[in-house]
Amino acid sequence: MKAEIIAIGTEILLGEIVDTNSAFIAQRLPELGIDLLYTSVVGDNLGRIVETLERAWNRSDLVITTGGLGPTDDDLTREGVARVLGEEPYVDPALEQRLRAWFAGRGYPMPESNIKQAWLIPSARPIENPRGTAPGWWVEHDGHIIVCMPGVPSEMERMWTKEVQPELERRFAGEVLVTRTLKTVGIGEGTVDEMARPLYATPGIGIGTYARADGVHLRIGAKARTREEAWARIRPVEEALERIFGDAIWGRDDDTFEGHIADLMHERRATLAVMESCTGGLLSSTLTDVPGASSYFVAGLVTYQTEQKIAFGVPAETIAEHGVVSQETARAMALAVRERIGTDYGIGITGVAGPDPQDGIPPGTVHVAVATPDGEAYVITTAMNQGRAAVKRRAVTTAMLLLRRALLGQLSARPA
Amino acid sequence: MKAEIIAIGTEILLGEIVDTNSAFIAQRLPELGIDLLYTSVVGDNLGRIVETLERAWNRSDLVITTGGLGPTDDDLTREGVARVLGEEPYVDPALEQRLRAWFAGRGYPMPESNIKQAWLIPSARPIENPRGTAPGWWVEHDGHIIVCMPGVPSEMERMWTKEVQPELERRFAGEVLVTRTLKTVGIGEGTVDEMARPLYATPGIGIGTYARADGVHLRIGAKARTREEAWARIRPVEEALERIFGDAIWGRDDDTFEGHIADLMHERRATLAVMESCTGGLLSSTLTDVPGASSYFVAGLVTYQTEQKIAFGVPAETIAEHGVVSQETARAMALAVRERIGTDYGIGITGVAGPDPQDGIPPGTVHVAVATPDGEAYVITTAMNQGRAAVKRRAVTTAMLLLRRALLGQLSARPA
Repeated sequence: MKAEIIAIGTEILLGEIVDTNSAFIAQRLPELGIDLLYTSVVGDNLGRIVETLERAWNRSDLVITTGGLGPTDDDLTREGVARVLGEEPYVDPALEQRLRAWFAGRGYPMPESNIKQAWLIPSARPIENPRGTAPGWWVEHDGHIIVCMPGVPSEMERMWTKEVQPELERRFAGEVLVTRTLKTVGIGEGTVDEMARPLYATPGIGIGTYARADGVHLRIGAKARTREEAWARIRPVEEALERIFGDAIWGRDDDTFEGHIADLMHERRATLAVMESCTGGLLSSTLTDVPGASSYFVAGLVTYQTEQKIAFGVPAETIAEHGVVSQETARAMALAVRERIGTDYGIGITGVAGPDPQDGIPPGTVHVAVATPDGEAYVITTAMNQGRAAVKRRAVTTAMLLLRRALLGQLSARPA
Repeated sequence: MKAEIIAIGTEILLGEIVDTNSAFIAQRLPELGIDLLYTSVVGDNLGRIVETLERAWNRSDLVITTGGLGPTDDDLTREGVARVLGEEPYVDPALEQRLRAWFAGRGYPMPESNIKQAWLIPSARPIENPRGTAPGWWVEHDGHIIVCMPGVPSEMERMWTKEVQPELERRFAGEVLVTRTLKTVGIGEGTVDEMARPLYATPGIGIGTYARADGVHLRIGAKARTREEAWARIRPVEEALERIFGDAIWGRDDDTFEGHIADLMHERRATLAVMESCTGGLLSSTLTDVPGASSYFVAGLVTYQTEQKIAFGVPAETIAEHGVVSQETARAMALAVRERIGTDYGIGITGVAGPDPQDGIPPGTVHVAVATPDGEAYVITTAMNQGRAAVKRRAVTTAMLLLRRALLGQLSARPA
């Protein structure tokens, strides 16, 4: 079946926010056997919303909209859909009751303008949105479907996952595209491409390589009538790639690198503490994005000022001799936090996040150290010519890569 | 003049990459007095590219495309534009020479497929692209313009800034749209909308409200022949809104909440230390995203395990009596870190990030405390029914809001 996505909101047209909802939905249509032919963005203008919805309605079986379900005058998705179908909105008593209860539960009165969020039209049934006040609309008419979801990503993503995708699966699972992504680290994209090439010719299979922040991804795709058939084509290729890449493969599909680290730490029953400076807590935050991280992540210290590094055990002489931003200080931070908190591993990060140089050291210079159970410490230095936020992210990835090498015993051989 | 943007590429439709180019361009059109009415994404399919280009050509004066200028068979933008104008592509000798020189300069032979990148049509002139092999196309015919740019953001952004925008300015600087965004906090969108409504009727002015993680934004827009004229319309409305919302307005335009906090702290020459549990370092990381934050942000402790909270000064009895996730523990954390690090203010955060409940406490329950110079501490408790990442972000925002209230002296009156 043919589908298209319409993101509604002037703030997207003005570039004030980037539309990530369309990509989220687009990623999830292929496995349903639904072909996405177009996505578009239209502003909060009733005429143009109607024009765009009408064209979509005429050329596609399924139209998915995000945004425009808020309570204000320029939230016009409901009005637009009603216009296209020539139906009159009415206030649904059950929705109104739930809406007023939502406000009552938060202890403030409902502005009457919000009543729009209790509207329905004859062809629409509401889609639950426990994360917000705006229910979605599932509109069905003449064999065409329009699904209207909120623009707030957390609300949209829950509505898609819990309500919309299951319903679409039940009804339209046609030819299914199944994909398996293998995530590698430590090998360049060109080399990964060459290593995987022998398998490119496998019939009924597509293989693509994608360079990402956490390494190079290999995606295997297969189309078939059933998921089982598709998987039967994918599995042998996956196994062949696993033989080729060995432990350069750290994860699959939705695995995250921080989740991979958590698994490695759990397996080894090892514990970790970190002392961060230029990353300002981002390493701790990233590692603890994984549910259950508390079983290995003991503590993080953000020693943003030099005195704090010393207060938490970094020798003043080391800093005096080599400077705050130095391999020696990074190593001392890793050793000190491991010692002070009493964990198996310790990580130290010091650098210049930017935008300005610090003591003549260019922004983007970052030293990352990992202290291991044997009391050794290993350091990597990276220099990146990027913005402050990117430098922080890259430094965090570098720290996780170095920790992985330590956990796999790939460091003791060659101290950095 | 009316414009639209078309992003071309199946990888965008598949959600493998998010289209940031359209937002980049969209942000820069209003100041040129160019109205962006639509943006859309179409895959690497000649028929659909032609259909989309044709509609755009017919309804808009200016069509801007990104992507599809690469050397491979599924880079079809040039073919699509030629088809829409009914013109024949030919190899331009000057472009071919430059293309071969580019490869020669990098010491490898040019794959013959690349010759497409030296194509032109009679209505097109090339646009320089020193960052890549694909020149852009400036196509002009019957008073309509199509500008084709590469999809690689760094190439597109340079081409836009150095070539396309200056040319558009020279030729179409017509009516200018100037906007001013006022950022409020602590008031719901519906209420903000009602409070601002009296001003909606102001002639020559558009006002929109947008719910954001850092509060509700009010955007005032005015069109005029000059920026001065537009500002002359905006200023009285801005002042009226400032009177209505008072210090519920914390910032303007590109201000970030963490930047606002940094300003408030600098003004007061005050210092801060934080002790985080469920946010895992995200508060420290967010506050230190602001360059120069080290002048007030002294240290952050991520006490992810209970023993660490005690080790850093939280009374064991408090935790034993009230539990790790409690208002009392949050208060004790704020007081302990302020005391231990020796700062003017301290923040403590404890809660359940989820996805699972902890000791029967539902995920999304977060207690945030701020300790003030007078040794007092104030607590807010929030309950949110959202994903782990969203809970962390919301908790960080809540902490910054509470700190702001403390800095503005809005707390001492009413201890939470």
